[in-house]
Amino acid sequence: MTRRLVLYNHPADTAAFDEYYFGTHIPIASKLPGLRSCIVSSEPPRLMAGNQAPYLIAELEFDSMADVQAAMGSAVGQATVADLANFAQAGVAVLTFDTRRV
Amino acid sequence: MTRRLVLYNHPADTAAFDEYYFGTHIPIASKLPGLRSCIVSSEPPRLMAGNQAPYLIAELEFDSMADVQAAMGSAVGQATVADLANFAQAGVAVLTFDTRRV
Repeated sequence: MTRRLVLYNHPADTAAFDEYYFGTHIPIASKLPGLRSCIVSSEPPRLMAGNQAPYLIAELEFDSMADVQAAMGSAVGQATVADLANFAQAGVAVLTFDTRRV
Repeated sequence: MTRRLVLYNHPADTAAFDEYYFGTHIPIASKLPGLRSCIVSSEPPRLMAGNQAPYLIAELEFDSMADVQAAMGSAVGQATVADLANFAQAGVAVLTFDTRRV
């Protein structure tokens, strides 16, 4: 499996972020071709070590890195990335990696 | 479900890190009580946005935040945290959050 982890920095207006994220962004991103599942943090993550907690984390799962690349190159993928400018002005980190169970 | 995300900074000696992590640390952490699953990145994550990629990401899944707290308070949990000093000198971020599927 391949995971795409999206870590959103803390927004200035959390209510506006939440409304846009769940009302507009998720409905777009959930149509990504090849997306197997998507989970989000249901509360701001607690930082147990390190020096900066994101406001929200989303984890998208795909079958392979090739599927991630195909998804992000699709019209839906381009719309998903373009939509970040509408609510994620505080910044975002996106990490993609193949996984294995240990 | 509750997820505990562990992001390891890039070590000075990746071969020594890998050997210790998979040979010693994972065998300790995999005995955490209540641990439902553990996956790790099988290659250094690719940074698609943001400004710093961790070297390795581990995702531990538990049934609840209470289970995470019980696990980390157990003897195995204390050994797992204490063991970080043996290989994660470059630093680590640990984020814990309840999840929901969207």
